[in-house]
Amino acid sequence: GAMSIEKLQRYREQMRTELDKVVDFWQKYSHDTQYGGFFTCIGKDGKIYDELKYVWLQGRQVWMYCRLYRTMERFNKPEILEAAKSGGAFLRRFARIPNSGSPWKCAFCLTRDGKALKVQRTIFSECFYVMAMDELARVTGDKDMQAEAAQMMDQLVHWVRVDPSGLGKPQLSGDTPVCSMAVPMMLLCLVQQLTEARSGEEVDKYREVGGWCVKQILQHLQRGGTAILESVSSEGKELPGCEGRLQNPGHALEAGWFLLQYGLENGDQELQRTAVDKFMEIPFLTGWDKEHGGLLYFLDVDGYCPTQLEWSMKLWWPHCEALIAYLMAYSHTKEPALLERFSQVYDYTFSHVISFTPFDPHNSLNSSGHGLNKVSNACHRDSDQC
Amino acid sequence: GAMSIEKLQRYREQMRTELDKVVDFWQKYSHDTQYGGFFTCIGKDGKIYDELKYVWLQGRQVWMYCRLYRTMERFNKPEILEAAKSGGAFLRRFARIPNSGSPWKCAFCLTRDGKALKVQRTIFSECFYVMAMDELARVTGDKDMQAEAAQMMDQLVHWVRVDPSGLGKPQLSGDTPVCSMAVPMMLLCLVQQLTEARSGEEVDKYREVGGWCVKQILQHLQRGGTAILESVSSEGKELPGCEGRLQNPGHALEAGWFLLQYGLENGDQELQRTAVDKFMEIPFLTGWDKEHGGLLYFLDVDGYCPTQLEWSMKLWWPHCEALIAYLMAYSHTKEPALLERFSQVYDYTFSHVISFTPFDPHNSLNSSGHGLNKVSNACHRDSDQC
Repeated sequence: GAMSIEKLQRYREQMRTELDKVVDFWQKYSHDTQYGGFFTCIGKDGKIYDELKYVWLQGRQVWMYCRLYRTMERFNKPEILEAAKSGGAFLRRFARIPNSGSPWKCAFCLTRDGKALKVQRTIFSECFYVMAMDELARVTGDKDMQAEAAQMMDQLVHWVRVDPSGLGKPQLSGDTPVCSMAVPMMLLCLVQQLTEARSGEEVDKYREVGGWCVKQILQHLQRGGTAILESVSSEGKELPGCEGRLQNPGHALEAGWFLLQYGLENGDQELQRTAVDKFMEIPFLTGWDKEHGGLLYFLDVDGYCPTQLEWSMKLWWPHCEALIAYLMAYSHTKEPALLERFSQVYDYTFSHVISFTPFDPHNSLNSSGHGLNKVSNACHRDSDQC
Repeated sequence: GAMSIEKLQRYREQMRTELDKVVDFWQKYSHDTQYGGFFTCIGKDGKIYDELKYVWLQGRQVWMYCRLYRTMERFNKPEILEAAKSGGAFLRRFARIPNSGSPWKCAFCLTRDGKALKVQRTIFSECFYVMAMDELARVTGDKDMQAEAAQMMDQLVHWVRVDPSGLGKPQLSGDTPVCSMAVPMMLLCLVQQLTEARSGEEVDKYREVGGWCVKQILQHLQRGGTAILESVSSEGKELPGCEGRLQNPGHALEAGWFLLQYGLENGDQELQRTAVDKFMEIPFLTGWDKEHGGLLYFLDVDGYCPTQLEWSMKLWWPHCEALIAYLMAYSHTKEPALLERFSQVYDYTFSHVISFTPFDPHNSLNSSGHGLNKVSNACHRDSDQC
């Protein structure tokens, strides 16, 4: 109706303003002109409060600049491309760890001058490296870079589907395999990145990976379709204890919009419905704080208190995932209830998460970097599809 | 004065009641009669909500039972000794990881039946193993067990002072050595455990280690004696960034009472004063929440918001450390201000941290297991010197 259109136009204007401010902030304060790459720990006043460089954030920023440059006219500016290229060069030079057993294993965190400081035994730094390189190759036309992204993707798929030993986790007798929803979700995101507007043999290979990811993600819908559990067994069964009962509403919503996108690309209407009715609706019903508003970080499906100390916090990123999910779902289904959900999350986010108050060092960080680290600023961190 | 004595007697009665309830709770609900060892994830109603067994908590419980059995008549009961022996047998059988490169490396977490599930590249599980075995050897007179504790202690000292490579951390070019206050603090605690009421060559060796630990801990007093920083460089200098600015009031207080104890044992009056005036006073001045009461978990010395999401939480364990520290300091100095501090923390703790309300699953856990994991119950977890 007319009211919806008016409402959506107002939201669009606000988000456009917000995006301009975000991009302006990162351009102004995050570029390290001395060593290359981007600072990732920046106060609201632009002050660098830590010089460490998180690899996944470097990758995300390269990707973000390129995606903006490629898809939105007002960001198609040489300084944005130059910054992306410079970040890409820093990543290529420093992110990977020689002597780690695999030429593709990346550090989690680097010193300002690019020395490896921490390494995680997961695939996430590498995922963001692939995203960055593929998107940068799309805007520069650099075929070597595109091939590099593809090679790292092959390694990721091998670690996930064939043999994880290259990630460096020691073999322990009680450590049975656990499927974390984050893994197929990130791989599905990469499949969408690598296949967009392409065709051919390579793309067919990725489509097979995508189908596998979707199946894996759907295994996390448990308890007769009433709960989305973050971790399940390799047979797709519920795990015992706290780990098995853990729900992460932000992740479920994020998986939801990846599934919806996949369902739309492949004309799979059942998957589209599951994405909306399960992966977007369940996390809202269980994860939205009915008293104070906002999405909780973690929940235990049986109502115990999660053991994560931060379980009851309202972080910025689940709200971004929810905004993307509900807007995407509404734009395809035109169901008013989904616009209502979007409005509810939008109003909460813009009145609680985003603040325009002057810099207060005690309040400059109430955010987590996507569950992977805890460094970026609530107000100035890019989201997946802003 | 008479008022202080009356006040202290009332506190003593309350804590005696509390201790009886705590020991009763753990005896009633935590013993795994099928597989041995102790459950460590228990709701207020006694329900086991996770069967995982954290090695450090197994060790702490063995130590606690033995210490109570040995030093307090009302706990000198055969069932307490039997439970400690059974826990000790479980630890000896399952805690260490064969094929880890060292016969002394322990798992962090075990499955219910004792299979290793997680291993940390730190020394803390091993520290609690030493504490457990030495205290158990004191009550059983088992010389082999005492020797085992001493051998593991030698390995710990080697990892800390000579070569940490056996702990399994990969060498990374940007990863310069960092001194964490937790390490010499725990070693000093072990020195006090291993030397108590003993003499001879072995004890002289430990005394040298103890002296080294004290020097290391004092390096964390920084900025002209106005701040205690959790991590410093190996030259005892402030580190850059968030890591260097991090303060952990609970750890500082804990270090304070270890230092005071060491100062008293060695007749070092200057150290006694530093322990009280710096390690007990600074964390209170900076870490006590002046508006709502309670000790904060983390602070940034320059007033930035710490990057740890849980920084503003009031956890049970820093309050235990503070109670021990201030009571110990008062009992030796008889300075009224220290009794005042004790009272303030005591009143906050007994009105906020300890609750006697009926079981509410949403409220059963608001605690962290000493910064090492997040599993034990706020109301029923033993503290270091209860």
